[in-house]
Amino acid sequence: MAEFPFELHATDGNARTGVLRTPRGDIRTPAFMPVGTAGTVKALLMDQVLEAGSDIILGNTYHLMLRPGAERVRDLGGLHNFSTWQGPILTDSGGFQVFSLSQLAKKSENGVIFQSHIDGSRHELTPERSIEIQAELLGADISMQFDECTEHPISHEDAALSMELSLRWGARSKAAFGQRPKQSLFGIVQGSTYPDLRQQSAEALVEQGFDGYAIGGLAVGEGFESMCEVLDYTPGYLPPDRPRYLMGVGRPIDLIESVARGIDMFDCVMPTRAGRHGQAWSDFGAFNLKNARFRDDKEPVLAEVNCPASQDYSRAYLHHLVKCNEPLAAILLSWHNIAYYQFLMQRIRSSILAGTLDVLRRDLADKTAAGLP
Amino acid sequence: MAEFPFELHATDGNARTGVLRTPRGDIRTPAFMPVGTAGTVKALLMDQVLEAGSDIILGNTYHLMLRPGAERVRDLGGLHNFSTWQGPILTDSGGFQVFSLSQLAKKSENGVIFQSHIDGSRHELTPERSIEIQAELLGADISMQFDECTEHPISHEDAALSMELSLRWGARSKAAFGQRPKQSLFGIVQGSTYPDLRQQSAEALVEQGFDGYAIGGLAVGEGFESMCEVLDYTPGYLPPDRPRYLMGVGRPIDLIESVARGIDMFDCVMPTRAGRHGQAWSDFGAFNLKNARFRDDKEPVLAEVNCPASQDYSRAYLHHLVKCNEPLAAILLSWHNIAYYQFLMQRIRSSILAGTLDVLRRDLADKTAAGLP
Repeated sequence: MAEFPFELHATDGNARTGVLRTPRGDIRTPAFMPVGTAGTVKALLMDQVLEAGSDIILGNTYHLMLRPGAERVRDLGGLHNFSTWQGPILTDSGGFQVFSLSQLAKKSENGVIFQSHIDGSRHELTPERSIEIQAELLGADISMQFDECTEHPISHEDAALSMELSLRWGARSKAAFGQRPKQSLFGIVQGSTYPDLRQQSAEALVEQGFDGYAIGGLAVGEGFESMCEVLDYTPGYLPPDRPRYLMGVGRPIDLIESVARGIDMFDCVMPTRAGRHGQAWSDFGAFNLKNARFRDDKEPVLAEVNCPASQDYSRAYLHHLVKCNEPLAAILLSWHNIAYYQFLMQRIRSSILAGTLDVLRRDLADKTAAGLP
Repeated sequence: MAEFPFELHATDGNARTGVLRTPRGDIRTPAFMPVGTAGTVKALLMDQVLEAGSDIILGNTYHLMLRPGAERVRDLGGLHNFSTWQGPILTDSGGFQVFSLSQLAKKSENGVIFQSHIDGSRHELTPERSIEIQAELLGADISMQFDECTEHPISHEDAALSMELSLRWGARSKAAFGQRPKQSLFGIVQGSTYPDLRQQSAEALVEQGFDGYAIGGLAVGEGFESMCEVLDYTPGYLPPDRPRYLMGVGRPIDLIESVARGIDMFDCVMPTRAGRHGQAWSDFGAFNLKNARFRDDKEPVLAEVNCPASQDYSRAYLHHLVKCNEPLAAILLSWHNIAYYQFLMQRIRSSILAGTLDVLRRDLADKTAAGLP
């Protein structure tokens, strides 16, 4: 494992801003990682993802192991060369998708045997195989321990059993990872919405020692209030000098509230998925360009976002493209949404530096509640 | 009407190369015009269309009058501002699509009444309305006369009647166009595969006098040999100092054979449509990236085409994207195909300048026959 240097430049309450330095480039934190599921951030060129202000992207182990296959990606030069993204890449462990997407997943102490949702072929993921795929075959800069993401709601007993299994898988992931001077391994805190379980999980992971710590098992239907509650206490059990990553979250309002509670890294499919469904994100929430109110609207999508997709096309043009199901609609709106998310992260980082995060928080909450004027 | 200056730089047999100078930019001829049906060249940014080597794009009157509506495009600043394409735009007259796409088209001497294929709404296209839409509302740099494109096969009698109707519609189009010092109007030669009708049509149009002349009614199922036959004699009836545009054609082999017979301009949906179906064009024809032979192919799509989509991604990556139905597959392959078509046009122009078009013709014919090595 390699603890990438993590320099904190300022704090504001529990929020922090800084930079995580990796061999493939710096990651400004708090950071938003666009999701590149199958070696592509959907509908975008990697140049566009980069220009939008992204320092790191996420790749999905489950999707890549099934298509094109992890050994094939290795033979084609690793995920960076394959996808042409030359910055840092974080891969998930495959655990989440195995349970949510695959067929007939059978869990045991050893790992999970499952059938591909694409062709029904049989596969196995274990902590050892997940790490081999992530660190060795795909060549991820940051790998995640293999874990189980529980559903919501779940009983305390089942959440405890699952959390303990994830801890044992974490230890095996760490052993399998071994010495990799240019790659990091993050542990994942589980325990659903139970404070005692989150504490146990976090303390045990810190005892094992990882290069960074993720909070998993949120954004699974528990709701905004419950998520915030977990984030009120969980980051406090994690070492302040290591990055904290909230997996799979979320809307702009989720991001800023999580940052205020000490989170440094995020990933979410929301901006690209919304882009493929005609939606543009803004401080006022997401607005759907298909709505007839935009039919004659000469305004750009969102002039304050420094991105061609946000500035150079009228809402009327986007409305037209969405109505016609033109591929360019998904391209421009995915691009805008990623750029908007990175514009938000930049404002969050600047606000923390200036000690004014609360002002931005209130402003975003007010605008979100008001909706697009 | 405005006869844009058309400078011929060289001829090679019946082939010619030069430049058509429009107020919005020069068009190097022979020219290939990517099709921007609904104000977007499908799956591409206009910057990509331009960088690929395109001097002019085509817009479809039929599609734009139905969505978003021609008056709306005018209110939004015209087709150039609406679509962000700042170079020259040629629009078709809508005649072809009215007969091929709309429902219940009823033709009369006056024009065509039809129902939209999108929502069943009733519309009328006449020579006067077509010209109003193209020249006044969309603001096309080059408008086409309203015409009827006949099916293949068609009897000599029906072809003659239709051709004569198109001639009358041509005269009305010209009258409706009037004096437009910065816009051109092209006539369209009809007459199916009948030499006498093509001659009558061409001579009557030249007598009326247009800024350029298109050959319509080909690429409708008559086949390569019949198309070449029509092109053996038709261009000879047209004035050498005016551009000749072959509508809706075609494959690379069609383009070069048409250039050899005196054609200067082309449009076709083939490169973008092929791109959305996983196909990459090359001198060896189109190859489908979905084919398993490309699964481990580290070669770029086509290294000799100076385009990021052609050079920066492996065929194995494209194979993966196509298999996964990723939007990036359509983006990269449409971009490559447009760049390949423009690369072909550039070689055609250079060959005419050098007096070696026959060498390129034979080379392309041999490679097309051989297929991808």
